[in-house]
Amino acid sequence: MTTTEQTVTLTASDGPNQPERTPALEELYRGFEKELLVPLWTEIGDLMPIQPQSKALPHVWRWKDLLPLAEKAGELVPVGRGGERRAIALANPGLSGAPFTTPTLWTAIQYLGPREDAPVHRHTQHAFRFVVEGEGVWTVVDGDPVAMRRGDFLLTPGWQFHGHHNQSDSPMAWIDGLDIPFAHHTESTFFEFGPDEVSDRGTPDRSRSEHLWAHPGLAPVSASGVPTPSSPLAAYRWEFTDNALNDQLKLESAGHSGVVEPGHAAVRFTNPTTGGDVMPTIRAEFHRLRRGAETATRREVGSSVFQVFEGTGRVRVGDREWTLTHGDLFVVPSWQPLTLATDEGLDLFRFSDTPIFDRLHQTRVIVEGTAQ
Amino acid sequence: MTTTEQTVTLTASDGPNQPERTPALEELYRGFEKELLVPLWTEIGDLMPIQPQSKALPHVWRWKDLLPLAEKAGELVPVGRGGERRAIALANPGLSGAPFTTPTLWTAIQYLGPREDAPVHRHTQHAFRFVVEGEGVWTVVDGDPVAMRRGDFLLTPGWQFHGHHNQSDSPMAWIDGLDIPFAHHTESTFFEFGPDEVSDRGTPDRSRSEHLWAHPGLAPVSASGVPTPSSPLAAYRWEFTDNALNDQLKLESAGHSGVVEPGHAAVRFTNPTTGGDVMPTIRAEFHRLRRGAETATRREVGSSVFQVFEGTGRVRVGDREWTLTHGDLFVVPSWQPLTLATDEGLDLFRFSDTPIFDRLHQTRVIVEGTAQ
Amino acid sequence: MTTTEQTVTLTASDGPNQPERTPALEELYRGFEKELLVPLWTEIGDLMPIQPQSKALPHVWRWKDLLPLAEKAGELVPVGRGGERRAIALANPGLSGAPFTTPTLWTAIQYLGPREDAPVHRHTQHAFRFVVEGEGVWTVVDGDPVAMRRGDFLLTPGWQFHGHHNQSDSPMAWIDGLDIPFAHHTESTFFEFGPDEVSDRGTPDRSRSEHLWAHPGLAPVSASGVPTPSSPLAAYRWEFTDNALNDQLKLESAGHSGVVEPGHAAVRFTNPTTGGDVMPTIRAEFHRLRRGAETATRREVGSSVFQVFEGTGRVRVGDREWTLTHGDLFVVPSWQPLTLATDEGLDLFRFSDTPIFDRLHQTRVIVEGTAQ
Amino acid sequence: MTTTEQTVTLTASDGPNQPERTPALEELYRGFEKELLVPLWTEIGDLMPIQPQSKALPHVWRWKDLLPLAEKAGELVPVGRGGERRAIALANPGLSGAPFTTPTLWTAIQYLGPREDAPVHRHTQHAFRFVVEGEGVWTVVDGDPVAMRRGDFLLTPGWQFHGHHNQSDSPMAWIDGLDIPFAHHTESTFFEFGPDEVSDRGTPDRSRSEHLWAHPGLAPVSASGVPTPSSPLAAYRWEFTDNALNDQLKLESAGHSGVVEPGHAAVRFTNPTTGGDVMPTIRAEFHRLRRGAETATRREVGSSVFQVFEGTGRVRVGDREWTLTHGDLFVVPSWQPLTLATDEGLDLFRFSDTPIFDRLHQTRVIVEGTAQ
Repeated sequence: MTTTEQTVTLTASDGPNQPERTPALEELYRGFEKELLVPLWTEIGDLMPIQPQSKALPHVWRWKDLLPLAEKAGELVPVGRGGERRAIALANPGLSGAPFTTPTLWTAIQYLGPREDAPVHRHTQHAFRFVVEGEGVWTVVDGDPVAMRRGDFLLTPGWQFHGHHNQSDSPMAWIDGLDIPFAHHTESTFFEFGPDEVSDRGTPDRSRSEHLWAHPGLAPVSASGVPTPSSPLAAYRWEFTDNALNDQLKLESAGHSGVVEPGHAAVRFTNPTTGGDVMPTIRAEFHRLRRGAETATRREVGSSVFQVFEGTGRVRVGDREWTLTHGDLFVVPSWQPLTLATDEGLDLFRFSDTPIFDRLHQTRVIVEGTAQ
Repeated sequence: MTTTEQTVTLTASDGPNQPERTPALEELYRGFEKELLVPLWTEIGDLMPIQPQSKALPHVWRWKDLLPLAEKAGELVPVGRGGERRAIALANPGLSGAPFTTPTLWTAIQYLGPREDAPVHRHTQHAFRFVVEGEGVWTVVDGDPVAMRRGDFLLTPGWQFHGHHNQSDSPMAWIDGLDIPFAHHTESTFFEFGPDEVSDRGTPDRSRSEHLWAHPGLAPVSASGVPTPSSPLAAYRWEFTDNALNDQLKLESAGHSGVVEPGHAAVRFTNPTTGGDVMPTIRAEFHRLRRGAETATRREVGSSVFQVFEGTGRVRVGDREWTLTHGDLFVVPSWQPLTLATDEGLDLFRFSDTPIFDRLHQTRVIVEGTAQ
Repeated sequence: MTTTEQTVTLTASDGPNQPERTPALEELYRGFEKELLVPLWTEIGDLMPIQPQSKALPHVWRWKDLLPLAEKAGELVPVGRGGERRAIALANPGLSGAPFTTPTLWTAIQYLGPREDAPVHRHTQHAFRFVVEGEGVWTVVDGDPVAMRRGDFLLTPGWQFHGHHNQSDSPMAWIDGLDIPFAHHTESTFFEFGPDEVSDRGTPDRSRSEHLWAHPGLAPVSASGVPTPSSPLAAYRWEFTDNALNDQLKLESAGHSGVVEPGHAAVRFTNPTTGGDVMPTIRAEFHRLRRGAETATRREVGSSVFQVFEGTGRVRVGDREWTLTHGDLFVVPSWQPLTLATDEGLDLFRFSDTPIFDRLHQTRVIVEGTAQ
Repeated sequence: MTTTEQTVTLTASDGPNQPERTPALEELYRGFEKELLVPLWTEIGDLMPIQPQSKALPHVWRWKDLLPLAEKAGELVPVGRGGERRAIALANPGLSGAPFTTPTLWTAIQYLGPREDAPVHRHTQHAFRFVVEGEGVWTVVDGDPVAMRRGDFLLTPGWQFHGHHNQSDSPMAWIDGLDIPFAHHTESTFFEFGPDEVSDRGTPDRSRSEHLWAHPGLAPVSASGVPTPSSPLAAYRWEFTDNALNDQLKLESAGHSGVVEPGHAAVRFTNPTTGGDVMPTIRAEFHRLRRGAETATRREVGSSVFQVFEGTGRVRVGDREWTLTHGDLFVVPSWQPLTLATDEGLDLFRFSDTPIFDRLHQTRVIVEGTAQ
């Protein structure tokens, strides 16, 4: 353990609600420092704000900037045991340079060159992949080869061995999402190395998990009645996501309920053994806005990250506003108001840390009405 | 309330474990009768057997016998308000002539002639339909028209208004399953009449519920995070069931796990909001046996009913044995050993009362090894 | 298995909503009978009433009549292996002479003479004892001797070995409650004989289960975090029940909430590992009415049985009305309206089958306003 | 929002598993910095250690040092609106001077002079008080005055209004525990000011919540069947805790199970509506070691804080070891091995963040055998 002891430094202040700055107070504060104590009354504004004051900032990362850097890393940085993955993380500008997109969520672009392998390991952090473009890589999760293709959402729940291998002659880049910052902060992380190569270099079109679980409303009797903390389904294929979104919009066109709000269809990826979120710490969804749609403004406890899959649009997060195009990623810190709009239609992948708050009864949501 | 008072009759017996049959004992028993009392010691053998002694008996009903009777009823018995449905129930030969297939489950063949309607009502009993052949009827469940076609499993959870209408020029017959005997015995049943005609005579290929819920692992965000006691999915289509069973057999052929036992694939129909059974009192499954397969012998608490969908085979329940062919229905009373076998392959729909016992922690299962 | 085959008998009727009584219909009905079929249209009124029509009837059993009969049984009927218990069940006058107080609940007076033993056995049916008067018996549950004293509520959850022994020179009588009718009807019952004598003839004041679990809001760390289907606490002592009821009335006197309704305090016995009911099929409560109190009229799905512990009063169930005094037992069938009133104060023990309906989402309650 | 934008700084290194330090690599890293990107391969050792590497350090704070500083603060620092509480937090030496005892838990000594008030507010953070000595203060939680006395464990679940007032002529100090660091890090915190004075200055011996909930295994029917996220019981009195611990030791002396390990009794404070932890983020327990007892060495995911209530002993946490006496507080960071021992007997209050990990399926515990 490399942690080193640190000290406490207190400054008596003239601020409002602060005790009078006297020599006796200064002496008391020196006593606090000596005993590693910090008074509430100097810190309460930061510690207990009226509503969440995120350190994390709204930010957008442009796919057109990320991809060339990943390609360049593909040239310069080998993938192998030790570094483990050629993954490049999105570091929120409010979080002191740490590779954390939000206080709880890690987002990275991962890049694998033609015929490259990423070695097998496992960790308690929960992970997923989302493929904004490309194909040719299989991720092998607990021995089950899972093809990665455009639009697919792919799971690697905590403590499952996994490695990737590119079976094609083209490179492939995709997005990784994990709960690394949450696990790091709560000091709950375990890691184990596996073999240098994946155990099964097969390239099936569908994983074994899909044979068992990718049938709507159907569970294999051999595994029924045993809820698992994470989804047993390793791949949520684009074809199904796309159909589900279209079906919601068809219902809306026919005058029936089902969409989130006018012109806004959305599906949540779920664990078929519970009906809940795919993994204990991560929620994942796909949103589709019709041409001309604009969402209500929404604030919620917890942070989320979006990636544009198709289309173009505009997003406002807090007091920042950006245009959006293919592959762009943006972060919505906790309790920051979010509004989305599009002229020509917009497809967005989203993930968030909401399950943490749901399970701790801390979720709050305000929908503030359509932005005008 | 038409219930009338009944009396208690006790007979002192010379049986084992019985007190000596004396005038004093007879006088005591007359005292018990007067006060509506029954001693445990005369009844314990029946009330507390070593293991379940089902009154319900194993029995098979032949589709070739049922269907003509239903057709004849179609000629003679109108469908309308009051009688409500042209449904003919399978009465277990052990249950005193009551229209109960088991002590908890109702099974009936329902028949609707060309262009006929069954009026709208609702009840707290949970209901489903399974279609062994035919098409042309829509069941309208809480206003949502649901096409009924061969192989489909269709839900009408408790207290949802529903009516049926045949939009074709052919009659259609199908199987209804409900928890009527359970609700009747526990005296928990409510019923309400609805309109004489269904509200929506549309004939969509897919119901609205399927637009929202028939996508594997995907839930509409507008309804997410709110588990419902019964499944929101009104129709489980044959195409998906068939694919799921084939996928299990493909895994088996490739040497992977997933089937229940060698040559025996099975899926459970589930509530996508919970991952559990489709309705609180009813489990439903579909089983497929490969050519030449034979199951282990299985005993479990609770009763079930099977219908042959395709193929032929043999079944042994307790000390009874039958050959099986298309449409045949048989009942497996509680704790009676069940073995299935087939030469040419066998597809079976099954439903049971298992969720009742699961929720009350009374489930027991013994798999006794493959029958030889 | 002694069950024998029975036949179906159908009678074409001229009743409303019945098809015309023709020779063809009679022939159809004969066909139904031959194939063990029963049409819905002749049965629906009984099977699917608008609201529960209980076969069980309201009834009261008088303690002053029960106790002498139990004493007489103590003279004439030995306790021992085979008969197992000197228990005399309350047979509802609507239930065909079966020893069932309601369709789901068994109630019996059990009697043990001085120095008598009841042998050890176990069964899947859940059981409790309630002691309206007396002491001197220990029930030994899974090896833990539990003293039985006036006002105590004592558990024997399903499948726990148990025997009783009277360590005093006086007889003792108490009430047993079980889910025998429910288990019998659903054919889910297992039974096993244990030793002829209890393993531990100790006579501790408090059971081991109370050492671990009878501390408010406290759980032993050695057993924490593992919810059990039934409560691990074998004895709920009168002292605590009495205090809890008095505390509710004190809050009411001070103008605070807590009582069920004016002048009516009530506690539910709970499983401390879940906060829910003590056993999966049985709810138990204790109710105290102040002098002059009268309850609202209440209807609920499911049946319950009350025993008067102290005081006197009046009860109305459905269209029946009785005065009540010490030890009297009365039954409230499903959905029958219940009203209680007292001049001098009334203490009542109650148990019901509500957990069955709660877990199956079938509970309904209507409180109809105070009876005038 | 006062957060300011920060930048990323990357240093190419010669370390193992790092790519060769070339000008091209440096240029790539500058590109990463520009786009707010951080590669995994430079950070993985810190982010994904083989097992938790706590930044938090083992540490002990001495009551004999804390109390005089709190008393001095009583002289110099007024309590009132703005500062809200005279609470002085234990700042872990590994956590950069922040007032966090662990990455998730806040611990403070709070001090209220004779006749002083602390104003009413509420916050989403969950709070408790533990009283190592003294009495005379009432905390008023959602309008219910709760006496605070030696040995009591007192709850203020999230979002309940609360203020304190000292009704005596003596000062009083106690320990506050909250999940402030967790809420702060996850940016999920709300706060609201209430009245400057508590609404009810009554000084009842027992709170209203205790009238309703402090009866073993009993719940008020008026509030039954509705699990609440936090316990409705505001006070866990020392008398009951002490009795429960003694009862476990009595069982051990009589040869029965119940203690955690030889000579080590422990109870968990629970939510009587669920049987689970008192609040969603905080577990609280009380441990009693007999004279001469020594615990096994235990490691678990998540952090905890102990306070010595009575007796003396020794503790080893990681590679640190201390003697312990009345009032001393020590911290056990995540996955640090903990061993306790005592010659004359030791009573310890403990709280931890375990519910967070339990609900996220991240709990791991290793008991390594008794330390020798």
